This record gives sequence, C-alpha cells and structure tokens, in this order.
Amino acid sequence: MANPSVVEATRGGRIESAHRGAGAVVDADGRTVLAFGDAEQAVYPRSAVKAMQALPLIESGAADRLGLSDNEIALACASHSGGEDHVAAVRAMLAKSGHDEGALECGAHWPLGEEEARALARSGKTPTALHNNCSGKHAGFICCACAIGVDPKGYVAPDHAVQREVTAAIAAMTGASLSEEMRGVDGCSIPTYAVPLLALARGFARLGAGQGLARERARAVARIRAAVAAHPSTVAGRGRFDTEVMSLTGARVFLKSGAEGVVCAALPEVGLGLAVKADDGAGRAAQVMIAALIRRFGGFDEETEASLARFVSPRLFNWNGLEVGRLRPAGPLA
Amino acid sequence: MANPSVVEATRGGRIESAHRGAGAVVDADGRTVLAFGDAEQAVYPRSAVKAMQALPLIESGAADRLGLSDNEIALACASHSGGEDHVAAVRAMLAKSGHDEGALECGAHWPLGEEEARALARSGKTPTALHNNCSGKHAGFICCACAIGVDPKGYVAPDHAVQREVTAAIAAMTGASLSEEMRGVDGCSIPTYAVPLLALARGFARLGAGQGLARERARAVARIRAAVAAHPSTVAGRGRFDTEVMSLTGARVFLKSGAEGVVCAALPEVGLGLAVKADDGAGRAAQVMIAALIRRFGGFDEETEASLARFVSPRLFNWNGLEVGRLRPAGPLA
Repeated sequence: MANPSVVEATRGGRIESAHRGAGAVVDADGRTVLAFGDAEQAVYPRSAVKAMQALPLIESGAADRLGLSDNEIALACASHSGGEDHVAAVRAMLAKSGHDEGALECGAHWPLGEEEARALARSGKTPTALHNNCSGKHAGFICCACAIGVDPKGYVAPDHAVQREVTAAIAAMTGASLSEEMRGVDGCSIPTYAVPLLALARGFARLGAGQGLARERARAVARIRAAVAAHPSTVAGRGRFDTEVMSLTGARVFLKSGAEGVVCAALPEVGLGLAVKADDGAGRAAQVMIAALIRRFGGFDEETEASLARFVSPRLFNWNGLEVGRLRPAGPLA
Repeated sequence: MANPSVVEATRGGRIESAHRGAGAVVDADGRTVLAFGDAEQAVYPRSAVKAMQALPLIESGAADRLGLSDNEIALACASHSGGEDHVAAVRAMLAKSGHDEGALECGAHWPLGEEEARALARSGKTPTALHNNCSGKHAGFICCACAIGVDPKGYVAPDHAVQREVTAAIAAMTGASLSEEMRGVDGCSIPTYAVPLLALARGFARLGAGQGLARERARAVARIRAAVAAHPSTVAGRGRFDTEVMSLTGARVFLKSGAEGVVCAALPEVGLGLAVKADDGAGRAAQVMIAALIRRFGGFDEETEASLARFVSPRLFNWNGLEVGRLRPAGPLA
C-alpha cells in the first residue's frame, strides 16, 4: 500500500508536485506516539545518524585524550558546508591525532554550501577530502582509531575495528539488527545500514533523554547534544535547514538530515524521538515533515511556534523575488 | 488513486527511494499509444514547452528580419547552463533587436551548470539576467515584440501582446484550454499554464511530425527542430541530460526538460509525442521515465539502444568513484 501524501508543493492555485512518506514519533521506552505510512520500513539513515556514529569517539576516551573541543565534537556529527572555518577545524582535529588530510578516506567534492563552493572557486583552489561534508565524521573515526590503538587505515571498511564500534553503537541505540543484508555503501564510503523508522525514532528518543542508557553512554549523548547545540553552524552551515532550526530552538531540538529524504530528531525536553523518510528521497519534503512534527510535539511557546512556520510551510520565490507557491504539510501532517 | 511507482533508486541490495509518476505516448492524430498513471492530469510544463513558446519568434518574421542564426533560435528554446558561450550569444541576440540585458525581465541567478557557476565565481564576477537559464527565451520574446511592433517592456505579463501570442501557440499545439485558473507564475516570471499530459504529448507529436499544422507553422516547427538538433549544447549544456541525449540521437529525438519533473519529447521519425511528470517533481525520475520511453518507441538500432542504457538506468557513484546503486525504470516502465 502506498504511503500517504505528506507534503505538497503549490504554484498558482494548484498542487504542482506532492511527496509521499512515512514517519514515527516514539518515546524512549519505545511507545509509539504517532506513526504514519509504513513506519516499520527499514530505511538507510545515511548522515542522519552521525551523532550515533560519533559515540565511540567519546566513549573510547579519544575526545578527552586528544583534547577535542565542543566544536570538534560537533564537527564529528556534521554534514558541513565546506566553508573555510569547517575545513580549518577538520585540519586541526586531524592534527591532534597526528594525521593530515591524507588519512581521510571520504573522497573529495566541491563544498555542499553553494556560497562556500563559489568562494573556493573564487580563490582559485579545488576541493580536497577536507571539503567533503563528512570530513569531520571521518576525522572523528581517525581520532577514535588512535585512541583504541588500531591503525586508522581502512577505517571505512565494515570489519575495521572503528566501524565495528560504530555499528554496535547504532544497533544498541536503535535496537535494530544491523546485519549484512541491510548494508549499503554511503556517499563517503562507510557502511550505512537500513533501520526501521520506528527504531530510528526510538534511538533518537534515547539520544535525547539519555533514558535507559548506561551511565557512560548517557554522558556521551549529553556531551554530543550540548556540543551540537553550542555550534549549530558547524553541523551544517549558514542558511541550511539543520543549522537554521537548531539556531532557533537551541537545545530543545537536536536534529540531523541525511541524504535521500531522511531526517531524525530528538526533543529532549519532552522525551521524544522522531524519524521521517520521504519515499522519493526529496530533502525538501523531509524537512517539511520533520518541521511539522517538531512544531506539533515540541511544546514550544507561541513565539517559537510562529518562527517555525517558515520551515513547516516555506514560501517559494522566483528569480525576481515574486512568491510563486509554497510547500505545505498534507494528509496526516496537515 | 496513486500513480504507479515508475523509477527506483537502489543502494546495496535494497530500494532506497522510489518515484511515482504518469506519462503518455501519443501520435499526431491524438491516438494514445501508451498511458500510465493519471495521464489526464494537468501539469505545469514549465520549461518543457520552450520550443512552442518560440513559435511566435519564427512566425512573426522576427527571426528572419533580425537575421537570427540557428544557434540563436536554439537559445530561444533553451534552459542553458549559463556558460560564457551562452551568455555571449544572448547578448548578441539582444543587440540584433537593439536591446541589451537591461531589457530582460527574467531575474538573475548563478549559472545552472555547476562548472559554469564556478567559472563565473573564479572570474570574480556575479551573475546578471544574461546568466538566467531562460535568458535566451526572454531575448526571443524581446525580438518578437520588436517584430510585431510593440514595446517589449512588460513582456512577461499574461496580457502583453507577446505572451498572448505565446499562449495561443501552446493552446493550438496542444489543443488544451489555457484559462486563467490553469495559470501559475514560472521561475522567470512568465505565465505557465497547466496542460494535461495527453495534450502535451499530442502537442509534441505535432511538433515532431508537423502533421495537421498550417504550412507556416509546420515550417516553423521544422526550423526549430533543426536548430536544436544542430546545437544540442545550446539548449542545455555539456553534461546535462537534454544535451547528452540529443547529442547521441541527433534529429531523431527532440526533447526538453522542465522544472518539477516534467519532460516532453518528440520522435519525428515515428510520429510520436511523449510527456512525463514525476509526482514529486524530481528531475532524475523524469529523465529515467522519458529515456525508457524513448528507447522503447524510438525504433533505434541496437547500438543506439545500448548507448541509451546510461540514461535509462544510470549508475550511481560515490565520492570515491565506487558504484553504490542505480536508478532504474519500474512498474509500467520496467
């Protein structure tokens, strides 16, 4: 059965395009507060679980031993825009582990941020692996390898000690079985395991509440959340969804977008975790979905709720600045 | 009822995302050869009908009077990448009408082509209306206004003499009623009218075959097709779908992509017109859909069919050049 239509794009008086999708809102005990579409479906979370992938960096003692700053911890959870600040911070983080960009196995691409890409072009340079939006996460893997005393080389492989730790952390947080048949290769070459939306939402509820976690892990998730809340521009970049929402809501929302229309979020104050997937992989749809859920379940004051409107139902402008339509939640999210 | 799933994106052994859509293959007499999904639905064709929007430019005598080249006629049908060649050609075209970029009402944006945008940034410049992917079409409107003896100013408005001619041409080609309630505003500020997919397909069958058209219009569509076939890099740009497919197939395929997942095509040799719309507006889905239909109905030799495979089922690579998945036609297009 088809997932419901959850986001519409209008133009003139008509619906120009529509997105279907599924999602779940779950508490840390695993009670489903809301589910729509096939919330049992396993989806590749891609970058949405970077905060979970960063747990071994904290729990191995690497972050403490290397003296990583909050900004560097946020960077390990980032899909950054590839700006000069991001690149310099990744370089510094690698240096703390005694490595340089040559150790990165993520591949190079032009900065994800359009302005950042043009700034790099303007400078006459071309991108390196440092500009890859995942370079902070990879620097975190390298730091972690050093702390647990293994050679970082080959750290992207599923059977490398670092990836085994990372996979175990995601499995424990979500309660999902991350078997080989659930595995794909991510854009930056590390494994990505398909996880049911309900399990992702539960994992994020735990990540937000710390509830049901061993003390060391509860400390680690709190540290990661605080680092990201203090550095919302580090985890994405100026003008990007994750950064803008968290800049507005502060520590009350922890959220992370992944490729192909996945976004996961934690609402620590109300003890809920959220996960959505747009069937078609559209980021714009996933953003509207998660924004609608955050507004509905976040328990915000009126002013914050009003400020969230531009994410829940963003207006669409053309090249002359004329409003030509908008995105809006539909069906179960209307 | 939901349109069928027509394109799948795979990763690892799983379907990561899927696109629903509708489409039609029609001959010039309006006989439906194939339809899937709701082919009666009216969709905004956006840039997909630029060739029809260019008909008044030819039929008004503007193209002849101003001595427009084939490349300039192709430019009037283009969503160009904003490269130096494109920009210089639009400037020259405007000069032939006694105007400069100040007459363009399309707004400015960074070049659609990523390489072209970076090249502009590298040169230290910022974009003007000439870089707008629609600037050639707009230059055509301005040339047309001059030929019919009206002030081009305000040519984007639905009731301007040029837009009335343009709207009449689309209505005649497609047989659709372009009433005010079907109207939205396009990215470049001109009106876009929602047209049923079956009617769009029929319009493109006529555009390809010239069948059932008055002599002057038949000559105009033939001239436009020849101009585009001779300059496939002008109508889009190096590496882009429209350019790459037409570079491969020559005059046997005329196709044009529009925003929000619409592509229309004519197969002049077999007398067919095609129109597809991805429900969610995804260009990647519309491209796979139209490529699958072109391969199936184009009557190509084995070699050309094999060459089309990279458009029908493109492989997806990550930043390290590893193949991580692919797009593939599904359901009625499998």
